[in-house]
Amino acid sequence: MNLLPLILAKRAGYELDETQIHTFVNAVSTGATPDYQISAFLMAVFFKGMTRNERVALTRAMAESGETLDWSALSAPTADKHSTGGVGDKISLILAPLAVALGMAVPMLSGRGLGFTGGTLDKLESIPGFSTDLDRAAFAKQMAEIGCGLIGQSGSIAPADRKLYSLRDVTGTVESLPLIVSSILSKKIAAGPASLVIDLKVGRGAFMRDLASAQALGTALRETAHDFGRRCTVLFTAMDAPLGLTVGNRPEVVESLEVLAGNGPEDIRDLTLALTSEMALLAGLSATAHEAWSRATAALDDGSALRIFGDIVLAQGGRLDLQAKGWGMPAAAHRAVLTAPVAGHLVDPDARKVGRIAVDLGAGRQRAEDEVDGSAGIIFARPWGASLARGEEIAFIEGADPARVDRAAEALGDVLEVAADPPTPASLFLGILDDAGYHSWQRPDISRRS
Amino acid sequence: MNLLPLILAKRAGYELDETQIHTFVNAVSTGATPDYQISAFLMAVFFKGMTRNERVALTRAMAESGETLDWSALSAPTADKHSTGGVGDKISLILAPLAVALGMAVPMLSGRGLGFTGGTLDKLESIPGFSTDLDRAAFAKQMAEIGCGLIGQSGSIAPADRKLYSLRDVTGTVESLPLIVSSILSKKIAAGPASLVIDLKVGRGAFMRDLASAQALGTALRETAHDFGRRCTVLFTAMDAPLGLTVGNRPEVVESLEVLAGNGPEDIRDLTLALTSEMALLAGLSATAHEAWSRATAALDDGSALRIFGDIVLAQGGRLDLQAKGWGMPAAAHRAVLTAPVAGHLVDPDARKVGRIAVDLGAGRQRAEDEVDGSAGIIFARPWGASLARGEEIAFIEGADPARVDRAAEALGDVLEVAADPPTPASLFLGILDDAGYHSWQRPDISRRS
Repeated sequence: MNLLPLILAKRAGYELDETQIHTFVNAVSTGATPDYQISAFLMAVFFKGMTRNERVALTRAMAESGETLDWSALSAPTADKHSTGGVGDKISLILAPLAVALGMAVPMLSGRGLGFTGGTLDKLESIPGFSTDLDRAAFAKQMAEIGCGLIGQSGSIAPADRKLYSLRDVTGTVESLPLIVSSILSKKIAAGPASLVIDLKVGRGAFMRDLASAQALGTALRETAHDFGRRCTVLFTAMDAPLGLTVGNRPEVVESLEVLAGNGPEDIRDLTLALTSEMALLAGLSATAHEAWSRATAALDDGSALRIFGDIVLAQGGRLDLQAKGWGMPAAAHRAVLTAPVAGHLVDPDARKVGRIAVDLGAGRQRAEDEVDGSAGIIFARPWGASLARGEEIAFIEGADPARVDRAAEALGDVLEVAADPPTPASLFLGILDDAGYHSWQRPDISRRS
Repeated sequence: MNLLPLILAKRAGYELDETQIHTFVNAVSTGATPDYQISAFLMAVFFKGMTRNERVALTRAMAESGETLDWSALSAPTADKHSTGGVGDKISLILAPLAVALGMAVPMLSGRGLGFTGGTLDKLESIPGFSTDLDRAAFAKQMAEIGCGLIGQSGSIAPADRKLYSLRDVTGTVESLPLIVSSILSKKIAAGPASLVIDLKVGRGAFMRDLASAQALGTALRETAHDFGRRCTVLFTAMDAPLGLTVGNRPEVVESLEVLAGNGPEDIRDLTLALTSEMALLAGLSATAHEAWSRATAALDDGSALRIFGDIVLAQGGRLDLQAKGWGMPAAAHRAVLTAPVAGHLVDPDARKVGRIAVDLGAGRQRAEDEVDGSAGIIFARPWGASLARGEEIAFIEGADPARVDRAAEALGDVLEVAADPPTPASLFLGILDDAGYHSWQRPDISRRS
């Protein structure tokens, strides 16, 4: 298949029709066209963009390049969440069972971490025995029985996206709005949830550095989801410092379990409640944000979400002990400690820098083929802004390889700052895009233990 | 070699330094980088352009990617001509021996035809026995003895250009000013002539459709040639109708021989005289355009240029009979004739359409791997504007394959027009860019047989 006519048309800024877009995706899927034509086309899209019609056609062709899942046999409304990626973002692990507790079915297909951001699949696989590789029948059975399966995006779901993404990654064509939209949504359209809440991260530790670009992406995502008849709300949240106090796979699972048990850091708990509440609103399970938030809070505090997570882990072969201290998660072989060099306040660390250190430590991947150390991670002893005495513990650096642990501890010591004055508390919630347009978002006034 | 940082820098519009450009060309030459990164970089260059410094660095790196020729041992000044390509453009065959007759040495490396434009190499190879494949020693010997060798651009001259050109051709990145400049000049810089006259074609049968784009390209070519210390003049000439009355390899050789013998169509003769005169001026062999034109005219009319062409052909194994009618060139096996359907004047045909018909006939290539029929071609019986009686012969279509000859005759019949009124004579010379800047160009007032 010779893509030259399509490359020239896009280069000149013409709108391609559905047949032409289908030809392109087919060329990608079949491998019948050399990569050099695909990458030239992608770079032309980077510079010339795509119209809404082109974006929908691209998303549809990519979604239909593989298997599409059908949940019409389930009685519960299907819903899902997508995060554009951050550091310490373990929300999916808490949100999935919590949404089930509120009455939703959550067919969640997750990816692996790459670069400085983590991946839900890696976190799940750090649980001893946990398998994310369910076949379709097992996945469907678990969806019917528990209401949730946490699996990997296999080669059969939107295979064109997998191929395109790996090519975009090495050809400088990642940062293109229509390519981002079609990549995110093709998988979600194929996986079948009726509604989708998007956590669009903005900040120095996010793909989107400024709110204006994030709003453009959010608008395009919501429009395109609507073009497929899916309900969609976009929450814009800050990603300047890591989310929660842990970065790394097992440490993040442990922190997630603490939140599921009604404890854990405020930011993780609030963000999970916010996203789950929006899912409940979209799914028609709650009439108001206040009601949704109350119900979700109760499901965390009464242990029902934790029990559902336990059911999912058990069904997927994982071994956790929900009664034991540390949840039965294996400890890391090596640990280093950072202490405050002076008295003062811990400044919010740069999420991107912390993410990179975690990757070097073995918690993530530089390249897709890198091996991950499930035990590797950074655990902050105190939240941002905490008042520290000189010599007080700030962070623990853990992992299987003592040399990497020492190197990461040194690097983290260079990144962490203790200031005389407490930092200005940063707002986690930047805004929301829903049926009322873009507007500010306020946490419902419900106390922690309602 | 991972080109991603260079792709991202160029995508953002940064100027690359010499080391970065060298890295890119090295990646192309060694084949150590996948084509998808090279094509993404090329598309970014298409959109973001290159500065003069980048263009020089790219041209230098490409020129130095292979062998560079050194003519310092020759006593004659070296000079060459480059045409940006047209239909019926056989100027090189006449110009090379004519420039030698005026005292220049011409190390001419030519290419093959692709698409609707012909190639000098194909024309030469339609002469029985003629070899364009000389080794370096034979080429140097012929340069020293005759003052000219007509050879192919072998893999050892600017190999990076060969690789890049074939990739640009299939990735929609041909029409980029810095890529065009570096492709043209890298070969000429490597081949070593001290001065270069460029015939920049403008019109419906040319790569450049309008004069403004052609002027931008001409300026960039001249600047870059100067950056390498080469003298350079750019002549802008019309390419709306075919040059001369023949299109196809053997027919064009025959027409060239007629011009070398002091006859042939006015446009071919004038364009050759103009380009050769500018070469003589650049080489310091003539003081004025009038003197150069007079000397060149004499060399055509006294047979000295034809004798030099005969020497070159003989040295390169070709068999021609300069005394015989038809010059000893084999006739085509099949011929069709087109006649005027009504009385009137022959309208200048669209060069691009005629070029395409000639390719279909077998005179050129659709793809690089196509075989060429040396005997195939179109011979117009009368020049544009000629007054024709009804039924008078307009054109002959010749070739080895009778079916293709018939098909081409039918297609040409659809393209040729006979109009009641004579067409307005078009100007061949549009302008010139030399030390005086861009200005109009006038044919010196010297009659045909001076």
